[in-house]
Amino acid sequence: MHTVVPFSGTDPCTRLSPVLEPAERREFAAAMRDDVLDAVDAAGGDPELVVPEPLDCDQADVPVTVDDRDLSTAVNAALDADAGPTAVVMADLALAEPRTLAALFEADGDVVVAPGRGGGTNALVVRHPDFRVDYHGASFLDHLRAARDAGASVREFDSHRLATDVDEPDDLAELLLHGDGRATRWLRQAGFDLTVADGRVGVERTTSGGDPT
Amino acid sequence: MHTVVPFSGTDPCTRLSPVLEPAERREFAAAMRDDVLDAVDAAGGDPELVVPEPLDCDQADVPVTVDDRDLSTAVNAALDADAGPTAVVMADLALAEPRTLAALFEADGDVVVAPGRGGGTNALVVRHPDFRVDYHGASFLDHLRAARDAGASVREFDSHRLATDVDEPDDLAELLLHGDGRATRWLRQAGFDLTVADGRVGVERTTSGGDPT
Repeated sequence: MHTVVPFSGTDPCTRLSPVLEPAERREFAAAMRDDVLDAVDAAGGDPELVVPEPLDCDQADVPVTVDDRDLSTAVNAALDADAGPTAVVMADLALAEPRTLAALFEADGDVVVAPGRGGGTNALVVRHPDFRVDYHGASFLDHLRAARDAGASVREFDSHRLATDVDEPDDLAELLLHGDGRATRWLRQAGFDLTVADGRVGVERTTSGGDPT
Repeated sequence: MHTVVPFSGTDPCTRLSPVLEPAERREFAAAMRDDVLDAVDAAGGDPELVVPEPLDCDQADVPVTVDDRDLSTAVNAALDADAGPTAVVMADLALAEPRTLAALFEADGDVVVAPGRGGGTNALVVRHPDFRVDYHGASFLDHLRAARDAGASVREFDSHRLATDVDEPDDLAELLLHGDGRATRWLRQAGFDLTVADGRVGVERTTSGGDPT
């Protein structure tokens, strides 16, 4: 399935600023993006990166579309450009496994919505010509409404892996608990590890990075 | 499937203390428990409440076992008492729908583990005689390890609804976004509503409760 992966690499993951320097956030975001692209590919999808400005990277195998408009406008332009079924998968879903995305692609419904924790929309499948995205605010509820307004059948896709967009410090624990890709390795090599205190799992950084041994 | 639902009603949901009074927490926890019991029943399960002290409630249709030992010991006693397949579903999974639990019950594996956000174990299916629980710490990883050590096949069950144990203020937004049972109605009647600010979904309490109109 044609799968749009929006990605902004200039100043990504700003909510991780308390724990990562700007250059680290760029590296980490790129690792998550590549995990997502690999998972889309392994799930049988055809990924297309949509970015606000040209990338300085070696994602040679993946078509890149540069669109400097806001996220919703850029994604809707990609939906306009392809009359067939199209998925939209965010680039910070580093826990998405191929089987998770394969199940998403196969889920029935004119519009399939995977909510993010906090009411966002982390992944979508669109099979209806009149459905368009609007990522502003609590977009999950808005997308359910928009799908129904368009006369589309709608299905919620229930997945912790897809609900976990990694954009806050607490999310790093989820990656260390459940991940095994580039982004998880990047975190470990940067010195991050799980902690357990008072029955709660957290994350600590035991070193400031450097070459892993 | 025989389904153990551990519940402690005396001082529940202590992490919700910043937003709910003690009596409110008891009411809210009971509403979540009843949502879970209903969902287990509708999914074809046979629920058994396991509580540390006798309940003052009208759950007449549900067998209640009083066991004042710690959670892990009490659950393991319930596993000891039933050689057949047994599920364990936490009483604060107010987003669990019948279809979610039916899929959990039907999932293959000697041990099926549904992780909670933060590394806990929110729901389990146990079909292996040597597997026992230990809810201390990051129990999800411990349970995977314990299952493998017991020679049991193990499967992770990926569900945002089951990953969301409602025990912190942020979790209330998930309930208002995705729930439609007693606990969600209780929250709305207590004056809680979603807010959207700066692209983030939150919760505010607009009244101190009272009779809904």
